Amino acid sequence: MSAAKSSSTSPSIQICRIMRPDDANIVGNVHGGTILKMIEEAGCIIGTRHCNTQSGDRCVAALARVERTDFLHPMFIGEVAHVSAEITYTSKHSVEVQVNVLSENILTGAKKVTNKAALWYVPFSIKDVDKIVEVPAIDYPSPELQEEGRKRYEAQKMERLETKERNGEVINQVSVPERHMKEPCTVGCSQSSLIHLVGPSDCTLLGFVHGGVTMKLMDEVAGIVAHRHCKTNIVTASVDAINFHRKINKGCVITVSGRMTFTSNKSMEIEVFVDADPLASEEGKFRAVTAFFTYISLDKENRPLSVPPLNLEGEEEQKRFEEGKVRYLQNKAKRLADKERQQ
Amino acid sequence: MSAAKSSSTSPSIQICRIMRPDDANIVGNVHGGTILKMIEEAGCIIGTRHCNTQSGDRCVAALARVERTDFLHPMFIGEVAHVSAEITYTSKHSVEVQVNVLSENILTGAKKVTNKAALWYVPFSIKDVDKIVEVPAIDYPSPELQEEGRKRYEAQKMERLETKERNGEVINQVSVPERHMKEPCTVGCSQSSLIHLVGPSDCTLLGFVHGGVTMKLMDEVAGIVAHRHCKTNIVTASVDAINFHRKINKGCVITVSGRMTFTSNKSMEIEVFVDADPLASEEGKFRAVTAFFTYISLDKENRPLSVPPLNLEGEEEQKRFEEGKVRYLQNKAKRLADKERQQ
Amino acid sequence: MSAAKSSSTSPSIQICRIMRPDDANIVGNVHGGTILKMIEEAGCIIGTRHCNTQSGDRCVAALARVERTDFLHPMFIGEVAHVSAEITYTSKHSVEVQVNVLSENILTGAKKVTNKAALWYVPFSIKDVDKIVEVPAIDYPSPELQEEGRKRYEAQKMERLETKERNGEVINQVSVPERHMKEPCTVGCSQSSLIHLVGPSDCTLLGFVHGGVTMKLMDEVAGIVAHRHCKTNIVTASVDAINFHRKINKGCVITVSGRMTFTSNKSMEIEVFVDADPLASEEGKFRAVTAFFTYISLDKENRPLSVPPLNLEGEEEQKRFEEGKVRYLQNKAKRLADKERQQ
Repeated sequence: MSAAKSSSTSPSIQICRIMRPDDANIVGNVHGGTILKMIEEAGCIIGTRHCNTQSGDRCVAALARVERTDFLHPMFIGEVAHVSAEITYTSKHSVEVQVNVLSENILTGAKKVTNKAALWYVPFSIKDVDKIVEVPAIDYPSPELQEEGRKRYEAQKMERLETKERNGEVINQVSVPERHMKEPCTVGCSQSSLIHLVGPSDCTLLGFVHGGVTMKLMDEVAGIVAHRHCKTNIVTASVDAINFHRKINKGCVITVSGRMTFTSNKSMEIEVFVDADPLASEEGKFRAVTAFFTYISLDKENRPLSVPPLNLEGEEEQKRFEEGKVRYLQNKAKRLADKERQQ
Repeated sequence: MSAAKSSSTSPSIQICRIMRPDDANIVGNVHGGTILKMIEEAGCIIGTRHCNTQSGDRCVAALARVERTDFLHPMFIGEVAHVSAEITYTSKHSVEVQVNVLSENILTGAKKVTNKAALWYVPFSIKDVDKIVEVPAIDYPSPELQEEGRKRYEAQKMERLETKERNGEVINQVSVPERHMKEPCTVGCSQSSLIHLVGPSDCTLLGFVHGGVTMKLMDEVAGIVAHRHCKTNIVTASVDAINFHRKINKGCVITVSGRMTFTSNKSMEIEVFVDADPLASEEGKFRAVTAFFTYISLDKENRPLSVPPLNLEGEEEQKRFEEGKVRYLQNKAKRLADKERQQ
Repeated sequence: MSAAKSSSTSPSIQICRIMRPDDANIVGNVHGGTILKMIEEAGCIIGTRHCNTQSGDRCVAALARVERTDFLHPMFIGEVAHVSAEITYTSKHSVEVQVNVLSENILTGAKKVTNKAALWYVPFSIKDVDKIVEVPAIDYPSPELQEEGRKRYEAQKMERLETKERNGEVINQVSVPERHMKEPCTVGCSQSSLIHLVGPSDCTLLGFVHGGVTMKLMDEVAGIVAHRHCKTNIVTASVDAINFHRKINKGCVITVSGRMTFTSNKSMEIEVFVDADPLASEEGKFRAVTAFFTYISLDKENRPLSVPPLNLEGEEEQKRFEEGKVRYLQNKAKRLADKERQQ
């Protein structure tokens, strides 16, 4: 009986699409943001579908958090991106969705896993957009898997609380400096910012921005910062965990700003800020999201290139660089540990 | 062993996507063209993938024909469109793909079959864009199914030959008249035309327009013609078989024109022409595609409304009306026969 | 004979499209930038088509200048925009295209002229992107019309030369200030800026940005500046003449910045700058375009609202305000004169 229920709540979904020129940079590498947007669309569909299997309020799943994501291989124009999503844990008010992305070259038949991601969604009622609906429980293949899910749930909850406090601070505007007066390879030299007026096709049925749309804009800015720094072909290598604390409504103007915080020999870390400005409402401007993107630079054969070192100015930049270095070393250690475990 | 081969050629694919405001008209009904484009994308992926399982030339599948397609139920913004495609027949130089489209309301869980379509693809070599590649054979579950496929293949081949000759005629430009001088409900009163400059994201890897892009534009024009005629909410009810005789290249300007040919009590038939103009090449303008779209008008509860009768002027329009009536009666008879057979 | 030639060079073109949710703001008013982009697409097609009627080099028409354009009435989602373009003058190396835009409410049949525009194009060779091709002459209905065209040609040539010199100055970066520290209704309070990475669909066959794409981005920034200033529903009322002196290539990052220069009782003037940064080439950054956009604020019945007066800080802003006032009074006088002449 439990199996029947599980299958009726449709525990998995598959999205696929051919990668077009508009999804990629001029060298043909698909933007990380294109992939993040597809991942989030799959998550939103499966999350919303699952949360509406209860008998109560109709609801829409809103993205609350994306766990750290690595881009394992570049994807190219003409390849087919396959995104498969599955619900792997449910708490009372949230759903964990795990997503795998595969690139398929339909000419050669070659397939590669390009991404794995984990997303957390919270369902909001359609009748009352501020009310969170209860999530129906899923059946787990084994108690061990449920227990592991519970641990992931607790861990992300802690982290979310932490960043909420951090975001509570007064917004320190990221001022874009007079670029032409800047030395090459300084923070100010590559710092960039864009604005976007939220349109209807950016939004869910409840009228707030899809998390995937925000992530795509963030990747766009981060990519321009990276490109400005090293002036070569660059691709997204990873994205840190991202928390979405507040919904951004239709009609807002979003400002997305990025600045370089750290460079290693072969990678660049860019901090990205999203500020929402609900122009036509009483509500004030607020910081909606922040995240760290890591980029690498590739040569014509898609091999990593050296990155020019970041030219630091002032104590603030020095401090951010040191913090970036800690994140870099932690991630490196974690990757090594994962590798050893797999062997 | 043959089963293994069959599975390695990956005989099916699933595409799905949330329907957005831009995919629909202002009442929220998804455009038939949006669905036709998704259907063709699925067909192109599975066709290209299959034709590259042979060891020879790398190739891209080009749409050669779509069989008559009915739109069984309207789809709405916020619903998820699921498109699943499967290869059902192969001849030496062509592939038949059958596609099912399902709409899913992820809030209520309701699912409806909205379309069934059959597409024929021909693989062109990447090295030599004018060379047609040999198609690897598929394994059939039974000899009967293979024989049925062969019959469909012969039937469409005949029809393709016929329309090729018809298209060979001199292009009689569809002149768009001074609408304001026209009587209401005449052909001239609703006749419409649009042009589109073919961009990179409209094209396959070989640089010619995706059949789905063309069909979407055709549906757009047909919808405007229908809307102009009856000034109510209209939706695509069916599309006649469409043949694609010549590839349209990047940089062409496409002119898509539509005129009403026939009205029954509850439906309108619109003939659509696609002319391609390779602006910056020696090659002249040519008629690329023609097709008949049938539209119906819906009230607020999505029930069919009566359609104002077409006001005919001149012998030509009278003749086209009579021909439209024959198609209408044939399709009606066929639908009835299909229904009886299913009972 | 001349008639035959003239008709073969296809002297006019018609584009139409239904306005979709993404083409408009949340109140349903179509963005001026959407219309500017359609106008330029029609101009580019007819210009390119005409310039390829000569027997020599294949070429693509690049936008060199748009004359001042007024938006006479707002357009709405669901209406059909009709853009008709016609070649009205040719010099040795340039083509003048005149464009009319009509909005049609296909439910009520109501039609309104919303825009008239005049664009100048220069044809560049496909083989050698820096070579300008000779333009075939058109036939004029009368010597008077030819003479009037010649006068328009001379007038725009003079103006182009002037702005070329002005643009030659060192780029004064438009610095975006710490908005939250600003007084309301100051220049700094509404100033805005966006970046855009030029993608394949933004470009012509020759790989440089369509003028219409640039104008759409400019209108986007200007609209956000206007919205930030008065926090009500705003629409584009007019755009000053815009000159495009240099082509912007694929892969460039464009920075588009806008600042308010002048407010009258019912209008706002915004100056917009476009800077192009060819990241991955030796070539330096350059100012590509500047223009003045005028916006008005509308209430729910689409009647003009008063605009909060601009709060000036410093001599620079005072000076720009005075210059804006001169332009405002000149345009007002010109509109009155045009009106009287028509009576």
